[in-house]
Amino acid sequence: MVQTPHGAFNTPAFMPVGTAGAVKAMTADDLERCGVEIILGNTYHLYLRPGEKTIRQLGGLATFNGWNKPTLTDSGGYQVFSLKDMLEIDDDGVTFRSHQDGSEHRFEAEKVVDIQRDIGADIIMSFDQCVPYPSDIDRARVGVERTFDWAKRGKTHFDLREKANPTGIALFGIVQGSTYPDLREISAGQIVSLDFPGYAVGGLAVGESKSEMEDILGHTLRFLPAEKPRYLMGVGYPEDILMAVSYGIDMFDCVLPTRNARTGMVFTSRGPLVFRNAEFAHDDRPLDPDCDCQVCRRYSRAYIRHLYNQKEITALMLATCHSIYFFQKLMKNIRTAIESGSFTAYRNEFLDKYLHGE
Amino acid sequence: MVQTPHGAFNTPAFMPVGTAGAVKAMTADDLERCGVEIILGNTYHLYLRPGEKTIRQLGGLATFNGWNKPTLTDSGGYQVFSLKDMLEIDDDGVTFRSHQDGSEHRFEAEKVVDIQRDIGADIIMSFDQCVPYPSDIDRARVGVERTFDWAKRGKTHFDLREKANPTGIALFGIVQGSTYPDLREISAGQIVSLDFPGYAVGGLAVGESKSEMEDILGHTLRFLPAEKPRYLMGVGYPEDILMAVSYGIDMFDCVLPTRNARTGMVFTSRGPLVFRNAEFAHDDRPLDPDCDCQVCRRYSRAYIRHLYNQKEITALMLATCHSIYFFQKLMKNIRTAIESGSFTAYRNEFLDKYLHGE
Repeated sequence: MVQTPHGAFNTPAFMPVGTAGAVKAMTADDLERCGVEIILGNTYHLYLRPGEKTIRQLGGLATFNGWNKPTLTDSGGYQVFSLKDMLEIDDDGVTFRSHQDGSEHRFEAEKVVDIQRDIGADIIMSFDQCVPYPSDIDRARVGVERTFDWAKRGKTHFDLREKANPTGIALFGIVQGSTYPDLREISAGQIVSLDFPGYAVGGLAVGESKSEMEDILGHTLRFLPAEKPRYLMGVGYPEDILMAVSYGIDMFDCVLPTRNARTGMVFTSRGPLVFRNAEFAHDDRPLDPDCDCQVCRRYSRAYIRHLYNQKEITALMLATCHSIYFFQKLMKNIRTAIESGSFTAYRNEFLDKYLHGE
Repeated sequence: MVQTPHGAFNTPAFMPVGTAGAVKAMTADDLERCGVEIILGNTYHLYLRPGEKTIRQLGGLATFNGWNKPTLTDSGGYQVFSLKDMLEIDDDGVTFRSHQDGSEHRFEAEKVVDIQRDIGADIIMSFDQCVPYPSDIDRARVGVERTFDWAKRGKTHFDLREKANPTGIALFGIVQGSTYPDLREISAGQIVSLDFPGYAVGGLAVGESKSEMEDILGHTLRFLPAEKPRYLMGVGYPEDILMAVSYGIDMFDCVLPTRNARTGMVFTSRGPLVFRNAEFAHDDRPLDPDCDCQVCRRYSRAYIRHLYNQKEITALMLATCHSIYFFQKLMKNIRTAIESGSFTAYRNEFLDKYLHGE
């Protein structure tokens, strides 16, 4: 359980991604009905539109978007480093062009803290440099050093701001280091030395193999204090979540349940289901026969496939709703299993069905 | 109150349009929460995709789309006569090309009854010929004669089918006659002579002026029995609904609340609101400050405008939900006013605010 200004959320937690302030094809009511306790907002997108000042003027993100439960905003780093129009990166920050209108902008450690404070999320992230996969060790080392420097600067700035105007929000640190165990250890040590209230593992799920991800994650977590929330950014698939939970990860975010729903695929207890396929044209079963969500209790695969093929928005809503619920139910089951000391049995049972379904 | 195999609905009723089996950007749960009691499905679209046989095989429309309340299907006539690829119309029916794949199809009176019975709506419509506006009197007269002939043939066929396999569904007749009072009287007399359980006024709201619509509607209704449901097809704006109710109309359908929501306009108690406009970028008021719907209780104009401009599906969902609720609330208020004998006062009060709002 993690406390925030907008209430508590249970861990391990999965945060659906609400890029522009809304989880795509969902309302805040829908999220509540799916059991979501915390969502993620993208700082880069909210900074560009509607702008952090507008959000602040309208009462902060929770008032603006009607989601009165916890929200975490990312640092914007991952987005700007992924941009085609990233113009320049130096030791002090990043200059980039907006994908919206081509205008030029710059992110630095202090500014990213101020933007996130204006947006008004409950948990905000230090500005970090996520290097691509693969990166040679020199490039990865530069990323680690910059990430440390920016974390220090951001935290100093954050502490001053909080002293002047306390809000109760939390700034987390991010560990980088690509696929190099030594760099991961160095980065974790540097970031933990700054004493953040929570730590994220960044730079994974960026193209490396699953076994490489597991090795690096397990190694990195040895250096992060277990008594503080530990967050694996951008992950992921149910099997990855179960793996990461076994190493002690408390928080996850990923676009998979929402993005894939909009391209015709949902997650089910028997594995991914590409519901847009012709084979489901006459299938009167729910998306997941073992699911008790609102969608599975009311609609068939045949119906949702039909709506999807007719380009009906309702198809995207129903598929998203199911997959969001599926991930929340997974996290709830994981929490229950952990409490009763039966996580490994639950994990094996889930994966047996999920990987070898129908 | 009209009884159907899937329960009763109150009148006057407004039916949101669910073209492909779903009201666009709404789930069946959403419709229920908005107070919707009956929806309309488009026979032309459902016949093409997923096909009436598929719907029947999957248990009929209410099982297929999860909407377990009443549904009315139109005759498909209006759609095929509006098609660019309408190939031929003769005294027996219409040949047309599918807008989906260009395949050739033909609708005749009996076939349209069978299609609608297979779809399994609660109220189905006779196949009719709706002529464009304006039409000269000869063309309009041909439309009236064909509509009468097809109504006769359809009803004979329907009665035989119901005798062999009773379903309890109702077949309504449709009055045509364009803007010619004499033709309207003739058409009404012909259709009423066939003794349908309900009557629709077709061929209005197709381009004529509001005063012309009112004149023709009032005239036509003199020849339709008041003790049976009377349905004005394709209408409309709140002011048109109030006008038509004053003449005795019991049922309406229109795409306005849903279609306009998806282009950035909602209906409010103070008139239409083009919420996508820049003037609402910092407006923290709900879409309609006098509305108690789920959307108005939770979200601001600024937020919904932001989502709309970011092309977020959620914007279309919220706008649609509000406007659907607005129309249902209007109908509920109309029913309450009629029951208490104060319809005219309610109408004047509503219009004063609606037409001269903010």
